[in-house]
Amino acid sequence: MKILVQKFGGTSVATLESMKQVREKVLDGLKRGNKVIAVLSARAGETNKLLALADEWSPTPDKAECDVLVSTGEQVSISLFTMLLKDIGIRARSLLGGQIPVTTDDDFGRARILSIDSKVLRAHLDQHDVLVVAGFQGCTEDGRITTLGRGGSDTSAVALAAALDSAECEIYTDVDGVYTTDPNICSTARKMDRVAYEEMLEMASMGAKVLHIRSVEFAKKYKVPVRVRSTFSDDPGTLVTQEDSSMEAVLVSGIAYDKDQARVTLRDLPDVPGMAASVFGPLSEKGVLVDMIVQNTSQDGHTDMTFTISRKDLPQTLELMTEVARKTGASEVLHDVSVAKVSAIGVGMRNHSGVAARAFAALTQEGINILMISTSEIKITILIQEKYVELAVRILHDTFGLDWDIG
Amino acid sequence: MKILVQKFGGTSVATLESMKQVREKVLDGLKRGNKVIAVLSARAGETNKLLALADEWSPTPDKAECDVLVSTGEQVSISLFTMLLKDIGIRARSLLGGQIPVTTDDDFGRARILSIDSKVLRAHLDQHDVLVVAGFQGCTEDGRITTLGRGGSDTSAVALAAALDSAECEIYTDVDGVYTTDPNICSTARKMDRVAYEEMLEMASMGAKVLHIRSVEFAKKYKVPVRVRSTFSDDPGTLVTQEDSSMEAVLVSGIAYDKDQARVTLRDLPDVPGMAASVFGPLSEKGVLVDMIVQNTSQDGHTDMTFTISRKDLPQTLELMTEVARKTGASEVLHDVSVAKVSAIGVGMRNHSGVAARAFAALTQEGINILMISTSEIKITILIQEKYVELAVRILHDTFGLDWDIG
Repeated sequence: MKILVQKFGGTSVATLESMKQVREKVLDGLKRGNKVIAVLSARAGETNKLLALADEWSPTPDKAECDVLVSTGEQVSISLFTMLLKDIGIRARSLLGGQIPVTTDDDFGRARILSIDSKVLRAHLDQHDVLVVAGFQGCTEDGRITTLGRGGSDTSAVALAAALDSAECEIYTDVDGVYTTDPNICSTARKMDRVAYEEMLEMASMGAKVLHIRSVEFAKKYKVPVRVRSTFSDDPGTLVTQEDSSMEAVLVSGIAYDKDQARVTLRDLPDVPGMAASVFGPLSEKGVLVDMIVQNTSQDGHTDMTFTISRKDLPQTLELMTEVARKTGASEVLHDVSVAKVSAIGVGMRNHSGVAARAFAALTQEGINILMISTSEIKITILIQEKYVELAVRILHDTFGLDWDIG
Repeated sequence: MKILVQKFGGTSVATLESMKQVREKVLDGLKRGNKVIAVLSARAGETNKLLALADEWSPTPDKAECDVLVSTGEQVSISLFTMLLKDIGIRARSLLGGQIPVTTDDDFGRARILSIDSKVLRAHLDQHDVLVVAGFQGCTEDGRITTLGRGGSDTSAVALAAALDSAECEIYTDVDGVYTTDPNICSTARKMDRVAYEEMLEMASMGAKVLHIRSVEFAKKYKVPVRVRSTFSDDPGTLVTQEDSSMEAVLVSGIAYDKDQARVTLRDLPDVPGMAASVFGPLSEKGVLVDMIVQNTSQDGHTDMTFTISRKDLPQTLELMTEVARKTGASEVLHDVSVAKVSAIGVGMRNHSGVAARAFAALTQEGINILMISTSEIKITILIQEKYVELAVRILHDTFGLDWDIG
């Protein structure tokens, strides 16, 4: 039995018309000789509407009950879509997360999948040609409804594909694949045919919205090839898969950027052991995610500590840092919200040196001042002034030859 | 463990404000020393909205999928209400029909309850003071979602009370009890303190909306005392219970009416064996419910057959009867939609004669022409012209002394 998992997001199932286009994609999956598992999200806007209802009802909505509430969004999608399939004689039925079951831990609102009963699914596939599964949801071992958190439908789809040894998992969205960079700011951006899991992870962590980071982690862990394609075109899209030699030949495969950055600096911190813990401990306790960190070399037993955070966390961070400065004797707390980061990503960097130097040189030549630098095995990230973001993306895209298909 | 089942309908859970009043009733149930099972309907209007969506999506929505869709209505109610309880520190959780489970047959859209796992419920009650249960829904033995059909939440509540040997089941609604007749057309209508199951059944079958007929059948079968009361007042309401001697002392306990009646007559049917089957067989096959039936004495081997049906079934019925007339040689098919029926109901009739005669005399004296008559052990039903309904109700209410509390 050849099994294809296809996932359709909120905009793809928003209206009767768009659902009919989704039906065409499912029929196409059947025509290719597969049994199809269609994983659906809630219709666009529904989840937010339900969360708003919870907020109206309670200042601190019970998390378990919130999942009971929010999970109705996907339930509506799968029942309506199954009606459409049955109308044209397809042997289909809907399945809720708890009916499979997709067993998760009990971290309501952002549960993690523990196991999926593939025996039940295969028995259903013996009786049906299409199973329409509610994404984003599962249940605890004792049968309480859970949700997987934002973007969880992608993770559901990949997990189902992994459980069923599906040959491929297709993630349908409103763009036709993964691009070398944002086409809205770089006209020479090019759709990639293939991208490595690691590269996709770095792009997702930079805020690229095409795939949710947890689903990519899952795909990488279970080696599930994921094809990103559009509900509204026939383009084959982009295959997210294991790194291979052709990918390694390419130095940089994509340029990403993130404007949601704020920079905070603590001046003249005493350079004593445990100082980093005094600074970042309070932030971690409050759930503030710290992104880039730079610490200068110590001078006269004092140092400057600079880090970046999401802009929404700035007021809380400044409050915490003022307290830290008081306790440690740091001279002042500075901040800047007109910053942004730009990254060059590529598994090819592993085997090549000088990539960072090329990036710095290209930006400097155009007069862009580099505020912070952070590098990993397959990524170079540079913090710059926000006003230069679009220019920097285009420069790096050009510098690393991404406007040419050299794959 | 004292267990009280309380059921709240769609208007009671429609808004945050009304849900807060529901919470007061649940708190009152707890104060009376009970563990409470609160059974909720979908918020007013939600079920119709979901059904409209199904109709938009499909000309013949798959029934099983319709139940998956519609059952989200109660799911939203129970999660929101449980949030309100948890906000004030009540140990509560929500339960879907399938989580208990309330096991039903697989007649989707109007499933019947087969069994309820009371062990699971009692285990939940050990851990919680209030269980908030989705009414109207259950699941098949293999775990598919079912709904019980219109008014099914009443049935859910009574079935839960029966399964748990609950002392009483309270059905909260927007009226404060069961009345001797419709107060909108008879100003002397009086709220009853008690009414027998059989009487309530006859009233429900006449379209009295206060309790769904299947829930009354269930209550009668399992001897569950049901109290009908208002969410919006402190009135003790009406207790629906087993017949006792005080009820039998009352000749007539209520007057009901139903305007949704159409009369059809087949003239000059050959009076041969099997003729009734030729007339009513085709109606039954098409699901047309026939209410009153009258057949005249045969003259010259021919007879007239008159029956009543719901007005919405008239076009189909006339079509079928024209065919029947052609086949059997009946001379014509007549119909009349300006008719309605009025009933006097009371378990006391069992031991008294002359009740029907008193009713006929009272109506005739006021010039109301009686078109058809049907009597059962505890009910007399009279078909009259629709324009006389309100007058007839008031006459009968007065004739049988219902404006005086003689209980």
